[in-house]
Amino acid sequence: MTRSTSPVQGRPDPAARTVTSASSTVVARRTSRDIRSDSRLDVLHAVLSAGETTRNALAQSTGLSLATVVTVVNELLAEGIIEEKKEMAAGRIGRPTALIGMNTDRGFVVGIDVAETYVRAVMFDTALNEVLSVESARDEHLLDPDSVVEGIGRTLDHLLDAAGVSRSEVLGVGIALPGLIQGPEGVSVVVPNWTWQKVELERLRERVGLPLVIENPLKSIAIAELWLGGGRRFSSLATVNLGTGVGAGIVLEGRILRGATNTAGEWGHTLLVLDGRRCRCGRRGCVESYIGAPGIQETLREIDPAHPLVDLDMQNDFILALAAVADGPEPDPAVTETIGRTAYYLGSALADLVAVINPEGVTLTGWTTWALGEHLMPATRRHLLEQSPGASARDVELEISTVRGNSVATGVATVVLERFLVDAGLLTSNIPVAL
Amino acid sequence: MTRSTSPVQGRPDPAARTVTSASSTVVARRTSRDIRSDSRLDVLHAVLSAGETTRNALAQSTGLSLATVVTVVNELLAEGIIEEKKEMAAGRIGRPTALIGMNTDRGFVVGIDVAETYVRAVMFDTALNEVLSVESARDEHLLDPDSVVEGIGRTLDHLLDAAGVSRSEVLGVGIALPGLIQGPEGVSVVVPNWTWQKVELERLRERVGLPLVIENPLKSIAIAELWLGGGRRFSSLATVNLGTGVGAGIVLEGRILRGATNTAGEWGHTLLVLDGRRCRCGRRGCVESYIGAPGIQETLREIDPAHPLVDLDMQNDFILALAAVADGPEPDPAVTETIGRTAYYLGSALADLVAVINPEGVTLTGWTTWALGEHLMPATRRHLLEQSPGASARDVELEISTVRGNSVATGVATVVLERFLVDAGLLTSNIPVAL
Repeated sequence: MTRSTSPVQGRPDPAARTVTSASSTVVARRTSRDIRSDSRLDVLHAVLSAGETTRNALAQSTGLSLATVVTVVNELLAEGIIEEKKEMAAGRIGRPTALIGMNTDRGFVVGIDVAETYVRAVMFDTALNEVLSVESARDEHLLDPDSVVEGIGRTLDHLLDAAGVSRSEVLGVGIALPGLIQGPEGVSVVVPNWTWQKVELERLRERVGLPLVIENPLKSIAIAELWLGGGRRFSSLATVNLGTGVGAGIVLEGRILRGATNTAGEWGHTLLVLDGRRCRCGRRGCVESYIGAPGIQETLREIDPAHPLVDLDMQNDFILALAAVADGPEPDPAVTETIGRTAYYLGSALADLVAVINPEGVTLTGWTTWALGEHLMPATRRHLLEQSPGASARDVELEISTVRGNSVATGVATVVLERFLVDAGLLTSNIPVAL
Repeated sequence: MTRSTSPVQGRPDPAARTVTSASSTVVARRTSRDIRSDSRLDVLHAVLSAGETTRNALAQSTGLSLATVVTVVNELLAEGIIEEKKEMAAGRIGRPTALIGMNTDRGFVVGIDVAETYVRAVMFDTALNEVLSVESARDEHLLDPDSVVEGIGRTLDHLLDAAGVSRSEVLGVGIALPGLIQGPEGVSVVVPNWTWQKVELERLRERVGLPLVIENPLKSIAIAELWLGGGRRFSSLATVNLGTGVGAGIVLEGRILRGATNTAGEWGHTLLVLDGRRCRCGRRGCVESYIGAPGIQETLREIDPAHPLVDLDMQNDFILALAAVADGPEPDPAVTETIGRTAYYLGSALADLVAVINPEGVTLTGWTTWALGEHLMPATRRHLLEQSPGASARDVELEISTVRGNSVATGVATVVLERFLVDAGLLTSNIPVAL
């Protein structure tokens, strides 16, 4: 498959002027400036993916001419974004085979995943290598803006303290907020019992005290997968996050699918069973109510209400315990059956996603995947193939993501890096969701 | 929302060279030639949408400069694709306010919808006005290539005879074939009991004896909607076809979503009820088994097995009879309940589609829509809104398509017109699925 322009941002053409007439909304054409910007983005993407690479290899992997690559590399070298590796310095500077990589002395970027039960802040260098990660528990009942903002701010402070890094060394902070949407009135955050408008978002910006971008978690995992995972091989893919909630980050033709209000990918709240289990979203029978961590526990409860794992309070503990039993020497029929049904639910629901968007690849991520993925994969793959209509799944590759760690934090940190490059004048892109 | 490049084709950038290296597939950048081609396509699209328009209005609706519009209009005038309307000729030729429209003397295009039970061939002028339409019954048990090819060929011959149009006046023929996919080995057609490879497709081309394009029906309805319907207002939309089968044509950022193997949009075979009704695709519980015409009849059978409409043999007759009863003076509780349940199934399934792709609009099309749409709409809209997660459906507009008639035939005829413009050197686009 081919890859279209702007593989990283995956958003409406940023340079496009929107012209609204009486009956139609259209966009002005791309300019040659965008084309230069795309070349820089492709080179950066390729450098990040490769770790270390050469100008020749970049020309090959991006499809750009060597002359263009040389020009772009010189621009990025001049800005200190990338560097020539010293160990290859014996020879002419700038020769096509010299090793180049990201300049990791340029500073740090931070990604923060604000999840239901925790806030995790992760520091990366500019090559997106993880430097340090800290997590704070979050009381999901404290939903007033001040508490949430302060929880995020304190976690960030802890991270900086623990790393011994000052704010001046941080290029920016990205925060993934659940329920982040983009409407006609601008950006807002809508989670149950928690509606933020501009004023709360401004408060967050003040507390962070650094260049800030915010992003929807599903878009964040898609961005991480696009830059660092399946995006290296597939131009269209769905990254499915399995945790408390479940959802999909979707990449089509090398671009993130955002949707009209930035809420595309809510596959977790599509139907598995009409009028089925009550989902916490209010609907019945959502995919999430079967394969979210509480849903998996519910399945075990249906199979064996007296099973000791049914009583575990913490979701993460439950999933880890389930995996431990499955890994153990003694077969536990109720656990085996729970994993089997979960694979059936997951494979069936993935078949729906594949039927609609027909991607080249599907990757699984999230903490349930890290714990249970290997147990789920064979049966999930079989159900996916059996239940997909026609040829849509015949060639689809299902795999566990190679982007380990917290891919929400990684993804949103990637957006920070991108934003930094925009501010440096290297890209024309705008971050679509930002304060 | 914004519209990206290439609104009509909605396919991977045609001018993009695909460069495959060891581990990645990338695409070369867009050229200034593509940008010129995009401008022409936008102008054509705007002329077709408007019927009659002016250079000034085109500049406004496309976002192009007046200078660019003037240049493009002159090119299209020179090729005889568009014309200046004579009634406005009093004044300087080429002035910004002169009325221009498609040149309908340029010839005809034909779109053919090969459905389960019929073959419908529709002739259009180059403004995509319907000129004449003929339909042949198709015996769905005659699945050998010779029978199908001959059925298509004979229907085309009937159309030309009835219109008194010779093959030399026809610019090309488009055929929508169910199950058309695009794989690594090229194009093939896979419907149950009916697998065509290159050789059968070549036979079809010989029988038609005119420039030919073939297209997947769901992509065809999406193209029709993009050029002539909701695409005028929405840059992202799903067009849902309700007939024997059901499916969705998806447009994202002004482009048709094809998918890795050209099978995106198979929403009709996503789950409504895990382990529910047996679907003819082999899976259980698909959306189609509830809201396809036979599914609606099954719902009536569940409500009242003795109802006289349960015995109607022909699907189309059944749907029309159901609508007639609903329109009639005497309330029929079983029919009312059938329509109510169908709206519940439809709204629930649309909520899934909206959750995943988060479009600006959803339009309904197909013969079930024409018969029952007005009865289904209010409840369907309510269920869609109630069941969509978060804000994804809050702003979505659900409406009955304004593209009347057979939108599969209209869509594939549009592709023919586009192909003609490519062959005339006016567009750089390639038709992706063609012989």
